[in-house]
Amino acid sequence: MKVLMCVPNISEGKNLVFINKIAAAISSTEKVKLLEASSDSDHHRSVFGFLGEPDQVLEAVKKLADLAIEGIDMTGHRGDHPRMGAVDVVPFIPLRNVTTDEALTVARSFGEYLGSKGVPVYYYEDAATVEGRRNLAAVRKGQYEALQAKLKDPAWAPDSGPAQFNPKAGATAVGVRFPLIAFNVNLNSKDLELANKIARGVRHLNGGYRYVRAIGVNLTELGLVQVSMNLTNYLKTPIHRVMETIRSEAARYGISIAGAEFVGPVPLNALEELVRFYLQAHDFSVNQVIETNLLE
Amino acid sequence: MKVLMCVPNISEGKNLVFINKIAAAISSTEKVKLLEASSDSDHHRSVFGFLGEPDQVLEAVKKLADLAIEGIDMTGHRGDHPRMGAVDVVPFIPLRNVTTDEALTVARSFGEYLGSKGVPVYYYEDAATVEGRRNLAAVRKGQYEALQAKLKDPAWAPDSGPAQFNPKAGATAVGVRFPLIAFNVNLNSKDLELANKIARGVRHLNGGYRYVRAIGVNLTELGLVQVSMNLTNYLKTPIHRVMETIRSEAARYGISIAGAEFVGPVPLNALEELVRFYLQAHDFSVNQVIETNLLE
Repeated sequence: MKVLMCVPNISEGKNLVFINKIAAAISSTEKVKLLEASSDSDHHRSVFGFLGEPDQVLEAVKKLADLAIEGIDMTGHRGDHPRMGAVDVVPFIPLRNVTTDEALTVARSFGEYLGSKGVPVYYYEDAATVEGRRNLAAVRKGQYEALQAKLKDPAWAPDSGPAQFNPKAGATAVGVRFPLIAFNVNLNSKDLELANKIARGVRHLNGGYRYVRAIGVNLTELGLVQVSMNLTNYLKTPIHRVMETIRSEAARYGISIAGAEFVGPVPLNALEELVRFYLQAHDFSVNQVIETNLLE
Repeated sequence: MKVLMCVPNISEGKNLVFINKIAAAISSTEKVKLLEASSDSDHHRSVFGFLGEPDQVLEAVKKLADLAIEGIDMTGHRGDHPRMGAVDVVPFIPLRNVTTDEALTVARSFGEYLGSKGVPVYYYEDAATVEGRRNLAAVRKGQYEALQAKLKDPAWAPDSGPAQFNPKAGATAVGVRFPLIAFNVNLNSKDLELANKIARGVRHLNGGYRYVRAIGVNLTELGLVQVSMNLTNYLKTPIHRVMETIRSEAARYGISIAGAEFVGPVPLNALEELVRFYLQAHDFSVNQVIETNLLE
Protein backbone atom coordinates (compact mmCIF):
# COMPACT_ATOMS: atom_id res chain seq x y z
CA MET A 1 0.00 0.00 0.00
CA LYS A 2 1.28 3.42 -0.95
CA VAL A 3 0.43 6.18 1.51
CA LEU A 4 0.78 9.86 0.75
CA MET A 5 -0.28 12.49 3.27
CA CYS A 6 -1.48 15.99 2.43
CA VAL A 7 -1.94 18.86 4.90
CA PRO A 8 -3.46 21.82 3.05
CA ASN A 9 -4.04 25.13 4.83
CA ILE A 10 -6.82 27.39 3.60
CA SER A 11 -7.57 31.01 4.47
CA GLU A 12 -10.95 30.50 6.11
CA GLY A 13 -11.23 29.77 9.80
CA LYS A 14 -14.64 31.13 10.78
CA ASN A 15 -17.33 29.81 8.47
CA LEU A 16 -17.76 26.33 9.95
CA VAL A 17 -20.45 25.31 7.47
CA PHE A 18 -18.03 25.97 4.64
CA ILE A 19 -15.15 24.28 6.48
CA ASN A 20 -17.24 21.19 7.19
CA LYS A 21 -18.23 21.07 3.53
CA ILE A 22 -14.56 20.85 2.59
CA ALA A 23 -13.92 18.20 5.24
CA ALA A 24 -16.86 16.19 3.88
CA ALA A 25 -15.56 16.51 0.31
CA ILE A 26 -12.20 15.11 1.42
CA SER A 27 -13.76 12.30 3.47
CA SER A 28 -16.07 11.32 0.64
CA THR A 29 -13.09 10.58 -1.62
CA GLU A 30 -12.73 6.86 -1.89
CA LYS A 31 -9.92 5.37 0.22
CA VAL A 32 -8.95 8.77 1.61
CA LYS A 33 -8.82 9.04 5.38
CA LEU A 34 -9.25 12.47 6.97
CA LEU A 35 -7.14 12.55 10.15
CA GLU A 36 -7.72 16.11 11.28
CA ALA A 37 -9.61 19.24 10.39
CA SER A 38 -8.91 22.18 12.66
CA SER A 39 -9.83 25.82 12.36
CA ASP A 40 -8.61 28.92 14.13
CA SER A 41 -10.76 32.02 13.96
CA ASP A 42 -7.95 34.37 15.08
CA HIS A 43 -5.73 32.98 12.33
CA HIS A 44 -8.79 32.86 10.04
CA ARG A 45 -7.33 29.65 8.74
CA SER A 46 -8.06 25.92 8.63
CA VAL A 47 -5.82 22.91 8.35
CA PHE A 48 -6.88 19.54 6.95
CA GLY A 49 -4.73 16.44 7.31
CA PHE A 50 -5.55 13.40 5.22
CA LEU A 51 -3.89 10.41 3.63
CA GLY A 52 -4.37 7.63 1.14
CA GLU A 53 -3.06 6.34 -2.17
CA PRO A 54 -1.38 9.17 -4.13
CA ASP A 55 -4.05 9.33 -6.86
CA GLN A 56 -6.89 9.52 -4.35
CA VAL A 57 -5.10 12.15 -2.30
CA LEU A 58 -4.67 14.23 -5.44
CA GLU A 59 -8.37 13.87 -6.17
CA ALA A 60 -9.28 14.98 -2.64
CA VAL A 61 -7.03 18.03 -2.62
CA LYS A 62 -8.43 19.11 -6.00
CA LYS A 63 -11.91 19.06 -4.44
CA LEU A 64 -10.61 21.19 -1.58
CA ALA A 65 -9.03 23.60 -4.07
CA ASP A 66 -12.23 23.92 -6.13
CA LEU A 67 -14.27 24.76 -3.04
CA ALA A 68 -11.68 27.12 -1.56
CA ILE A 69 -11.10 29.03 -4.80
CA GLU A 70 -14.83 29.41 -5.31
CA GLY A 71 -15.76 30.23 -1.73
CA ILE A 72 -12.89 32.33 -0.37
CA ASP A 73 -12.19 35.92 -1.35
CA MET A 74 -8.75 37.06 -0.22
CA THR A 75 -9.70 40.71 -0.74
CA GLY A 76 -9.96 41.98 2.79
CA HIS A 77 -8.84 38.72 4.47
CA ARG A 78 -7.43 39.42 7.92
CA GLY A 79 -5.78 36.87 10.19
CA ASP A 80 -2.85 36.54 12.57
CA HIS A 81 -1.14 33.82 10.54
CA PRO A 82 0.97 34.67 7.47
CA ARG A 83 -0.92 33.80 4.28
CA MET A 84 -0.94 34.63 0.60
CA GLY A 85 -3.83 32.67 -0.91
CA ALA A 86 -7.26 31.10 -0.51
CA VAL A 87 -5.50 27.76 -0.82
CA ASP A 88 -2.48 29.00 1.07
CA VAL A 89 -0.05 26.14 1.40
CA VAL A 90 -0.27 22.51 0.35
CA PRO A 91 2.47 20.15 1.54
CA PHE A 92 2.54 16.57 0.29
CA ILE A 93 4.25 14.15 2.66
CA PRO A 94 5.42 10.71 1.51
CA LEU A 95 4.60 8.32 4.33
CA ARG A 96 4.73 4.75 3.17
CA ASN A 97 6.10 3.11 0.01
CA VAL A 98 6.00 6.51 -1.71
CA THR A 99 9.26 8.04 -2.95
CA THR A 100 9.98 11.76 -2.93
CA ASP A 101 9.83 11.59 -6.73
CA GLU A 102 6.32 10.13 -6.65
CA ALA A 103 5.24 12.84 -4.22
CA LEU A 104 6.81 15.42 -6.51
CA THR A 105 4.76 14.09 -9.43
CA VAL A 106 1.57 14.55 -7.42
CA ALA A 107 2.64 18.02 -6.24
CA ARG A 108 3.42 19.14 -9.80
CA SER A 109 0.16 17.72 -11.05
CA PHE A 110 -1.72 19.64 -8.37
CA GLY A 111 0.30 22.78 -9.11
CA GLU A 112 -0.63 22.54 -12.78
CA TYR A 113 -4.28 22.09 -11.84
CA LEU A 114 -4.21 25.23 -9.70
CA GLY A 115 -2.35 27.07 -12.47
CA SER A 116 -5.03 26.10 -14.99
CA LYS A 117 -7.56 27.70 -12.63
CA GLY A 118 -5.66 31.00 -12.83
CA VAL A 119 -3.82 30.70 -9.51
CA PRO A 120 -0.08 31.47 -9.46
CA VAL A 121 1.78 28.58 -7.77
CA TYR A 122 5.18 28.45 -6.10
CA TYR A 123 6.84 25.13 -5.37
CA TYR A 124 8.66 24.99 -2.02
CA GLU A 125 10.81 22.65 0.11
CA ASP A 126 11.61 19.44 -1.77
CA ALA A 127 9.44 20.65 -4.67
CA ALA A 128 11.34 23.95 -5.06
CA THR A 129 12.63 24.70 -8.56
CA VAL A 130 15.23 27.16 -7.25
CA GLU A 131 17.04 27.21 -3.91
CA GLY A 132 15.50 30.58 -2.96
CA ARG A 133 12.02 29.04 -2.97
CA ARG A 134 12.85 26.13 -0.71
CA ASN A 135 11.90 28.01 2.46
CA LEU A 136 8.14 28.60 2.80
CA ALA A 137 8.64 31.81 4.78
CA ALA A 138 10.76 33.22 1.94
CA VAL A 139 8.13 32.29 -0.64
CA ARG A 140 5.35 33.85 1.42
CA LYS A 141 7.35 36.95 2.39
CA GLY A 142 5.19 40.09 2.19
CA GLN A 143 2.14 37.83 2.17
CA TYR A 144 -0.98 38.37 0.06
CA GLU A 145 -0.52 42.14 0.12
CA ALA A 146 2.86 41.91 -1.66
CA LEU A 147 1.68 39.56 -4.43
CA GLN A 148 0.70 42.15 -7.01
CA ALA A 149 4.17 43.71 -7.03
CA LYS A 150 5.96 40.36 -6.56
CA LEU A 151 4.35 38.83 -9.64
CA LYS A 152 5.74 41.65 -11.79
CA ASP A 153 9.27 40.71 -10.69
CA PRO A 154 10.72 38.09 -13.09
CA ALA A 155 12.59 36.57 -10.12
CA TRP A 156 9.19 35.68 -8.69
CA ALA A 157 7.59 34.34 -11.85
CA PRO A 158 5.33 31.52 -10.63
CA ASP A 159 6.27 27.87 -11.20
CA SER A 160 2.79 27.24 -12.55
CA GLY A 161 -0.15 29.43 -13.49
CA PRO A 162 -0.25 33.01 -14.75
CA ALA A 163 2.28 35.67 -13.66
CA GLN A 164 -0.68 37.83 -12.99
CA PHE A 165 -2.25 38.87 -9.68
CA ASN A 166 -5.43 36.98 -8.85
CA PRO A 167 -7.08 39.21 -6.22
CA LYS A 168 -9.67 36.67 -5.17
CA ALA A 169 -7.48 33.54 -4.86
CA GLY A 170 -4.04 35.05 -4.22
CA ALA A 171 -1.25 32.51 -4.72
CA THR A 172 -0.48 29.04 -3.43
CA ALA A 173 2.67 27.37 -2.15
CA VAL A 174 2.79 23.69 -3.07
CA GLY A 175 5.49 21.52 -1.56
CA VAL A 176 6.85 18.12 -0.75
CA ARG A 177 8.33 17.60 2.67
CA PHE A 178 9.34 15.06 5.25
CA PRO A 179 6.76 14.25 7.98
CA LEU A 180 7.08 16.79 10.75
CA ILE A 181 6.72 15.85 14.41
CA ALA A 182 5.40 18.35 16.94
CA PHE A 183 7.09 17.43 20.22
CA ASN A 184 6.95 19.40 23.47
CA VAL A 185 8.93 18.88 26.65
CA ASN A 186 7.66 20.34 29.94
CA LEU A 187 10.16 21.50 32.56
CA ASN A 188 9.62 21.64 36.30
CA SER A 189 10.15 25.38 36.35
CA LYS A 190 8.23 28.62 35.90
CA ASP A 191 11.22 30.35 34.35
CA LEU A 192 10.34 31.12 30.74
CA GLU A 193 13.84 32.42 30.07
CA LEU A 194 15.19 29.00 31.07
CA ALA A 195 12.89 27.30 28.56
CA ASN A 196 14.00 29.76 25.89
CA LYS A 197 17.65 29.22 26.76
CA ILE A 198 17.21 25.45 26.32
CA ALA A 199 15.16 25.99 23.14
CA ARG A 200 18.03 28.02 21.71
CA GLY A 201 20.40 25.22 22.67
CA VAL A 202 18.61 22.59 20.63
CA ARG A 203 17.33 24.58 17.66
CA HIS A 204 19.09 24.95 14.34
CA LEU A 205 18.76 28.73 14.28
CA ASN A 206 21.16 29.15 17.20
CA GLY A 207 23.61 26.33 16.57
CA GLY A 208 21.51 23.39 17.75
CA TYR A 209 20.30 20.37 15.85
CA ARG A 210 19.75 20.89 12.15
CA TYR A 211 16.14 19.67 12.03
CA VAL A 212 14.77 21.31 15.17
CA ARG A 213 12.68 24.44 15.47
CA ALA A 214 12.02 25.39 19.11
CA ILE A 215 10.65 28.11 21.36
CA GLY A 216 10.04 28.47 25.08
CA VAL A 217 6.39 28.63 26.11
CA ASN A 218 4.69 29.46 29.40
CA LEU A 219 2.18 26.86 30.61
CA THR A 220 0.54 29.13 33.12
CA GLU A 221 -2.19 26.72 34.20
CA LEU A 222 0.27 23.93 34.89
CA GLY A 223 2.77 26.29 36.50
CA LEU A 224 5.45 24.97 34.14
CA VAL A 225 7.43 26.11 31.15
CA GLN A 226 7.78 24.15 27.94
CA VAL A 227 10.25 23.69 25.13
CA SER A 228 7.86 23.54 22.18
CA MET A 229 9.36 22.00 19.06
CA ASN A 230 8.91 20.96 15.49
CA LEU A 231 11.21 18.12 14.54
CA THR A 232 11.43 18.44 10.77
CA ASN A 233 13.44 15.29 10.04
CA TYR A 234 13.25 12.61 12.71
CA LEU A 235 15.62 10.36 10.77
CA LYS A 236 18.47 12.86 10.75
CA THR A 237 17.73 14.49 14.11
CA PRO A 238 16.09 11.71 16.14
CA ILE A 239 13.67 12.39 18.95
CA HIS A 240 15.71 10.73 21.69
CA ARG A 241 18.76 12.88 21.02
CA VAL A 242 16.77 16.07 21.38
CA MET A 243 15.07 14.71 24.51
CA GLU A 244 18.37 13.77 26.16
CA THR A 245 19.98 17.10 25.28
CA ILE A 246 17.08 18.93 26.88
CA ARG A 247 17.37 16.67 29.92
CA SER A 248 21.07 17.39 30.30
CA GLU A 249 20.74 21.13 29.70
CA ALA A 250 17.89 21.37 32.21
CA ALA A 251 19.85 19.34 34.75
CA ARG A 252 22.63 21.89 34.85
CA TYR A 253 20.12 24.30 36.37
CA GLY A 254 18.85 21.58 38.70
CA ILE A 255 15.62 21.34 36.71
CA SER A 256 13.99 18.05 35.77
CA ILE A 257 11.62 17.10 32.98
CA ALA A 258 7.98 16.95 34.10
CA GLY A 259 6.63 15.34 30.96
CA ALA A 260 6.50 15.45 27.21
CA GLU A 261 3.92 15.15 24.46
CA PHE A 262 3.51 14.61 20.78
CA VAL A 263 0.98 17.00 19.30
CA GLY A 264 -0.83 15.28 16.48
CA PRO A 265 0.23 12.28 14.45
CA VAL A 266 3.57 10.50 14.63
CA PRO A 267 4.86 8.18 11.90
CA LEU A 268 5.49 4.63 13.10
CA ASN A 269 9.02 4.86 11.72
CA ALA A 270 9.84 7.57 14.24
CA LEU A 271 9.37 5.06 17.05
CA GLU A 272 12.00 2.72 15.62
CA GLU A 273 15.00 4.75 16.69
CA LEU A 274 13.35 5.52 20.06
CA VAL A 275 13.09 1.81 20.85
CA ARG A 276 16.60 1.20 19.55
CA PHE A 277 18.06 3.91 21.76
CA TYR A 278 16.19 3.45 25.00
CA LEU A 279 16.17 -0.36 25.00
CA GLN A 280 19.60 -0.53 23.33
CA ALA A 281 17.82 -2.78 20.85
CA HIS A 282 20.26 -1.93 18.08
CA ASP A 283 18.62 -4.09 15.42
CA PHE A 284 14.98 -3.38 16.23
CA SER A 285 12.89 -2.77 13.14
CA VAL A 286 9.34 -1.51 12.84
CA ASN A 287 8.86 -4.49 10.55
CA GLN A 288 8.77 -6.54 13.76
CA VAL A 289 5.66 -4.66 14.80
CA ILE A 290 2.85 -7.09 14.07
CA GLU A 291 0.56 -4.41 12.70
CA THR A 292 2.96 -3.53 9.88
CA ASN A 293 2.01 -6.90 8.38
CA LEU A 294 -1.52 -5.67 8.07
CA LEU A 295 -0.48 -2.58 6.11
CA GLU A 296 1.48 -3.98 3.17
CA MET B 1 -10.62 -4.59 11.34
CA LYS B 2 -10.56 -7.50 13.76
CA VAL B 3 -7.25 -9.31 14.01
CA LEU B 4 -6.80 -12.67 15.68
CA MET B 5 -3.44 -14.41 15.71
CA CYS B 6 -2.89 -18.15 15.84
CA VAL B 7 0.42 -19.91 16.52
CA PRO B 8 -0.11 -23.66 16.14
CA ASN B 9 2.74 -26.10 16.84
CA ILE B 10 2.76 -29.42 15.05
CA SER B 11 4.87 -32.52 15.70
CA GLU B 12 6.74 -32.61 12.40
CA GLY B 13 10.00 -30.73 11.95
CA LYS B 14 11.87 -32.69 9.29
CA ASN B 15 9.69 -33.27 6.24
CA LEU B 16 9.99 -29.86 4.62
CA VAL B 17 7.77 -30.77 1.68
CA PHE B 18 4.97 -31.55 4.11
CA ILE B 19 5.69 -28.46 6.23
CA ASN B 20 5.67 -26.22 3.16
CA LYS B 21 2.35 -27.74 2.10
CA ILE B 22 0.86 -26.68 5.42
CA ALA B 23 2.35 -23.19 5.12
CA ALA B 24 0.87 -22.92 1.63
CA ALA B 25 -2.54 -24.04 2.87
CA ILE B 26 -2.49 -21.31 5.51
CA SER B 27 -1.27 -18.64 3.09
CA SER B 28 -3.86 -19.58 0.51
CA THR B 29 -6.66 -18.77 2.95
CA GLU B 30 -8.22 -15.50 1.94
CA LYS B 31 -7.16 -12.51 4.06
CA VAL B 32 -4.89 -14.65 6.25
CA LYS B 33 -1.30 -13.50 6.56
CA LEU B 34 1.37 -16.04 7.44
CA LEU B 35 4.03 -14.26 9.50
CA GLU B 36 6.34 -17.12 10.29
CA ALA B 37 6.84 -20.82 9.64
CA SER B 38 9.82 -22.32 11.40
CA SER B 39 10.88 -25.91 11.88
CA ASP B 40 13.36 -27.56 14.18
CA SER B 41 14.53 -31.05 13.31
CA ASP B 42 15.91 -31.74 16.82
CA HIS B 43 12.57 -30.79 18.31
CA HIS B 44 10.88 -32.53 15.35
CA ARG B 45 8.38 -29.73 15.54
CA SER B 46 7.18 -26.75 13.48
CA VAL B 47 5.56 -23.48 14.46
CA PHE B 48 3.31 -21.41 12.21
CA GLY B 49 2.30 -17.87 13.09
CA PHE B 50 -0.52 -16.24 11.16
CA LEU B 51 -3.23 -13.67 11.58
CA GLY B 52 -6.38 -12.29 10.08
CA GLU B 53 -10.10 -11.93 10.75
CA PRO B 54 -11.25 -14.55 13.30
CA ASP B 55 -13.34 -16.55 10.79
CA GLN B 56 -10.51 -16.77 8.29
CA VAL B 57 -8.01 -17.72 10.96
CA LEU B 58 -10.31 -20.53 12.06
CA GLU B 59 -10.55 -21.70 8.46
CA ALA B 60 -6.74 -21.68 8.08
CA VAL B 61 -6.08 -23.60 11.29
CA LYS B 62 -8.66 -26.21 10.31
CA LYS B 63 -6.70 -26.77 7.08
CA LEU B 64 -3.53 -27.17 9.14
CA ALA B 65 -5.31 -29.65 11.43
CA ASP B 66 -6.62 -31.71 8.52
CA LEU B 67 -3.16 -32.01 6.99
CA ALA B 68 -1.40 -32.69 10.31
CA ILE B 69 -3.89 -35.33 11.47
CA GLU B 70 -3.65 -37.05 8.12
CA GLY B 71 0.10 -36.79 7.64
CA ILE B 72 1.60 -37.20 11.11
CA ASP B 73 1.74 -40.45 13.05
CA MET B 74 2.64 -39.88 16.69
CA THR B 75 3.50 -43.56 17.13
CA GLY B 76 7.26 -43.47 17.45
CA HIS B 77 7.57 -39.67 17.33
CA ARG B 78 10.82 -38.56 18.97
CA GLY B 79 11.84 -34.96 19.64
CA ASP B 80 13.51 -32.84 22.30
CA HIS B 81 10.48 -30.65 22.85
CA PRO B 82 7.57 -31.77 25.07
CA ARG B 83 4.59 -32.83 22.90
CA MET B 84 1.43 -34.87 23.09
CA GLY B 85 -0.17 -34.65 19.66
CA ALA B 86 0.21 -34.30 15.90
CA VAL B 87 -1.44 -30.92 16.32
CA ASP B 88 0.28 -30.32 19.63
CA VAL B 89 -0.73 -26.90 20.86
CA VAL B 90 -2.87 -24.18 19.29
CA PRO B 91 -2.96 -20.79 21.02
CA PHE B 92 -5.30 -18.09 19.75
CA ILE B 93 -4.15 -14.57 20.51
CA PRO B 94 -6.53 -11.60 20.32
CA LEU B 95 -4.53 -8.77 18.74
CA ARG B 96 -6.82 -6.03 17.54
CA ASN B 97 -10.51 -5.30 18.14
CA VAL B 98 -10.99 -8.90 19.26
CA THR B 99 -12.12 -9.59 22.82
CA THR B 100 -11.01 -12.59 24.85
CA ASP B 101 -14.58 -13.85 24.55
CA GLU B 102 -14.46 -13.72 20.76
CA ALA B 103 -11.14 -15.55 20.78
CA LEU B 104 -12.67 -18.12 23.15
CA THR B 105 -15.51 -18.70 20.70
CA VAL B 106 -13.01 -19.42 17.94
CA ALA B 107 -10.93 -21.67 20.22
CA ARG B 108 -14.02 -23.67 21.27
CA SER B 109 -15.15 -23.96 17.69
CA PHE B 110 -11.72 -25.28 16.69
CA GLY B 111 -11.70 -27.63 19.71
CA GLU B 112 -15.06 -29.06 18.66
CA TYR B 113 -13.77 -29.52 15.12
CA LEU B 114 -10.76 -31.49 16.39
CA GLY B 115 -13.02 -33.45 18.72
CA SER B 116 -15.27 -34.41 15.83
CA LYS B 117 -12.18 -35.81 14.11
CA GLY B 118 -11.56 -38.11 17.08
CA VAL B 119 -8.84 -36.04 18.76
CA PRO B 120 -9.11 -35.46 22.54
CA VAL B 121 -8.77 -31.72 23.24
CA TYR B 122 -7.77 -29.87 26.41
CA TYR B 123 -8.44 -26.15 26.74
CA TYR B 124 -5.63 -24.23 28.47
CA GLU B 125 -4.74 -20.71 29.66
CA ASP B 126 -7.66 -18.31 29.19
CA ALA B 127 -9.63 -21.12 27.54
CA ALA B 128 -9.21 -23.50 30.51
CA THR B 129 -12.42 -24.99 31.91
CA VAL B 130 -10.81 -25.79 35.26
CA GLU B 131 -7.94 -24.04 37.01
CA GLY B 132 -5.73 -27.14 36.84
CA ARG B 133 -5.71 -26.98 33.06
CA ARG B 134 -4.68 -23.35 32.80
CA ASN B 135 -0.97 -24.15 32.68
CA LEU B 136 0.13 -25.79 29.41
CA ALA B 137 2.96 -27.72 31.09
CA ALA B 138 0.45 -29.27 33.52
CA VAL B 139 -1.86 -30.25 30.66
CA ARG B 140 1.00 -31.79 28.70
CA LYS B 141 2.61 -33.49 31.72
CA GLY B 142 3.76 -36.99 30.84
CA GLN B 143 3.48 -36.06 27.17
CA TYR B 144 2.16 -38.34 24.42
CA GLU B 145 3.39 -41.43 26.23
CA ALA B 146 1.14 -40.75 29.25
CA LEU B 147 -2.03 -40.10 27.24
CA GLN B 148 -3.45 -43.61 27.22
CA ALA B 149 -3.48 -43.81 31.02
CA LYS B 150 -4.41 -40.14 31.48
CA LEU B 151 -7.54 -40.45 29.34
CA LYS B 152 -8.84 -43.20 31.63
CA ASP B 153 -8.65 -40.80 34.59
CA PRO B 154 -11.97 -38.91 34.94
CA ALA B 155 -9.99 -35.89 36.18
CA TRP B 156 -8.43 -35.74 32.73
CA ALA B 157 -11.57 -36.25 30.66
CA PRO B 158 -11.01 -34.11 27.55
CA ASP B 159 -12.88 -30.82 27.08
CA SER B 160 -13.81 -31.90 23.58
CA GLY B 161 -13.52 -35.15 21.62
CA PRO B 162 -13.52 -38.75 22.83
CA ALA B 163 -12.01 -39.82 26.18
CA GLN B 164 -10.21 -42.45 24.22
CA PHE B 165 -6.57 -42.70 23.20
CA ASN B 166 -5.92 -41.81 19.57
CA PRO B 167 -2.49 -43.36 18.91
CA LYS B 168 -1.94 -41.61 15.60
CA ALA B 169 -3.03 -38.07 16.49
CA GLY B 170 -2.44 -37.99 20.27
CA ALA B 171 -4.17 -35.06 21.92
CA THR B 172 -4.23 -31.30 21.40
CA ALA B 173 -4.05 -28.32 23.75
CA VAL B 174 -6.14 -25.41 22.49
CA GLY B 175 -5.85 -22.09 24.26
CA VAL B 176 -6.42 -18.37 24.29
CA ARG B 177 -3.63 -16.21 25.57
CA PHE B 178 -2.20 -12.73 25.64
CA PRO B 179 0.46 -11.91 23.01
CA LEU B 180 3.84 -13.01 24.31
CA ILE B 181 6.99 -10.98 23.72
CA ALA B 182 10.37 -12.67 23.47
CA PHE B 183 12.85 -10.12 24.79
CA ASN B 184 16.54 -10.68 25.47
CA VAL B 185 19.03 -8.42 27.22
CA ASN B 186 22.77 -8.89 26.65
CA LEU B 187 25.19 -8.12 29.45
CA ASN B 188 28.81 -7.04 29.11
CA SER B 189 30.01 -10.10 30.97
CA LYS B 190 30.96 -13.70 30.35
CA ASP B 191 29.64 -14.79 33.74
CA LEU B 192 26.67 -17.08 33.10
CA GLU B 193 25.93 -17.28 36.81
CA LEU B 194 25.52 -13.50 36.84
CA ALA B 195 22.97 -13.73 34.00
CA ASN B 196 21.13 -16.46 35.87
CA LYS B 197 21.20 -14.45 39.09
CA ILE B 198 19.61 -11.50 37.30
CA ALA B 199 17.14 -13.79 35.49
CA ARG B 200 16.04 -15.13 38.88
CA GLY B 201 15.63 -11.56 40.08
CA VAL B 202 13.14 -10.61 37.40
CA ARG B 203 11.25 -13.86 36.87
CA HIS B 204 7.99 -14.82 38.55
CA LEU B 205 9.25 -18.23 39.64
CA ASN B 206 11.72 -16.73 42.10
CA GLY B 207 9.83 -13.69 43.33
CA GLY B 208 10.27 -11.40 40.34
CA TYR B 209 7.69 -9.87 38.04
CA ARG B 210 4.50 -11.85 37.62
CA TYR B 211 4.56 -12.04 33.82
CA VAL B 212 8.25 -12.78 33.23
CA ARG B 213 9.89 -16.08 32.43
CA ALA B 214 13.68 -15.79 32.26
CA ILE B 215 16.89 -17.78 32.04
CA GLY B 216 20.56 -16.94 31.71
CA VAL B 217 22.15 -17.92 28.39
CA ASN B 218 25.76 -18.01 27.20
CA LEU B 219 26.40 -16.13 23.93
CA THR B 220 29.77 -17.73 23.31
CA GLU B 221 30.38 -16.15 19.92
CA LEU B 222 29.71 -12.66 21.20
CA GLY B 223 31.58 -13.29 24.44
CA LEU B 224 28.55 -12.11 26.38
CA VAL B 225 25.83 -13.55 28.56
CA GLN B 226 22.15 -12.89 28.09
CA VAL B 227 19.00 -12.71 30.15
CA SER B 228 16.59 -14.44 27.80
CA MET B 229 12.93 -13.75 28.55
CA ASN B 230 9.34 -14.31 27.66
CA LEU B 231 7.15 -11.41 28.72
CA THR B 232 3.71 -12.98 28.95
CA ASN B 233 1.69 -9.87 29.65
CA TYR B 234 3.32 -6.61 28.55
CA LEU B 235 0.40 -4.58 29.89
CA LYS B 236 0.77 -5.80 33.46
CA THR B 237 4.54 -6.26 33.47
CA PRO B 238 5.75 -3.65 30.97
CA ILE B 239 8.99 -4.01 29.03
CA HIS B 240 10.66 -0.88 30.40
CA ARG B 241 10.26 -1.99 34.00
CA VAL B 242 11.98 -5.29 33.33
CA MET B 243 14.71 -3.53 31.34
CA GLU B 244 15.40 -1.01 34.10
CA THR B 245 15.44 -3.70 36.80
CA ILE B 246 17.99 -5.67 34.80
CA ARG B 247 20.02 -2.50 34.33
CA SER B 248 20.04 -1.74 38.04
CA GLU B 249 20.77 -5.32 39.09
CA ALA B 250 23.63 -5.55 36.58
CA ALA B 251 25.01 -2.21 37.71
CA ARG B 252 25.51 -3.47 41.24
CA TYR B 253 28.12 -5.84 39.83
CA GLY B 254 29.58 -3.06 37.72
CA ILE B 255 28.15 -4.64 34.58
CA SER B 256 26.44 -2.65 31.83
CA ILE B 257 23.90 -3.65 29.20
CA ALA B 258 25.45 -4.33 25.81
CA GLY B 259 22.23 -4.51 23.87
CA ALA B 260 18.80 -6.02 23.69
CA GLU B 261 16.55 -7.64 21.12
CA PHE B 262 13.01 -8.64 20.44
CA VAL B 263 12.82 -12.10 18.92
CA GLY B 264 9.90 -12.24 16.53
CA PRO B 265 6.88 -10.02 16.36
CA VAL B 266 5.92 -7.28 18.82
CA PRO B 267 2.41 -5.84 19.11
CA LEU B 268 2.26 -2.11 18.43
CA ASN B 269 0.49 -1.64 21.76
CA ALA B 270 3.61 -2.81 23.59
CA LEU B 271 5.46 0.25 22.30
CA GLU B 272 2.94 2.63 23.86
CA GLU B 273 4.15 2.25 27.42
CA LEU B 274 7.79 2.27 26.26
CA VAL B 275 7.34 5.69 24.67
CA ARG B 276 5.38 6.92 27.68
CA PHE B 277 8.10 5.86 30.09
CA TYR B 278 11.26 6.81 28.27
CA LEU B 279 10.00 10.12 26.87
CA GLN B 280 7.86 10.80 29.95
CA ALA B 281 5.08 11.26 27.41
CA HIS B 282 2.39 10.31 29.92
CA ASP B 283 -0.54 10.68 27.52
CA PHE B 284 1.03 9.15 24.43
CA SER B 285 -1.30 6.80 22.63
CA VAL B 286 -0.63 4.41 19.76
CA ASN B 287 -3.68 6.01 18.17
CA GLN B 288 -1.35 8.93 17.43
CA VAL B 289 0.73 6.65 15.25
CA ILE B 290 -0.30 7.58 11.72
CA GLU B 291 -0.33 3.98 10.52
CA THR B 292 -3.06 3.01 13.01
CA ASN B 293 -5.41 5.08 10.87
CA LEU B 294 -4.74 2.72 8.01
CA LEU B 295 -5.73 -0.30 10.09
CA GLU B 296 -9.23 0.73 11.15
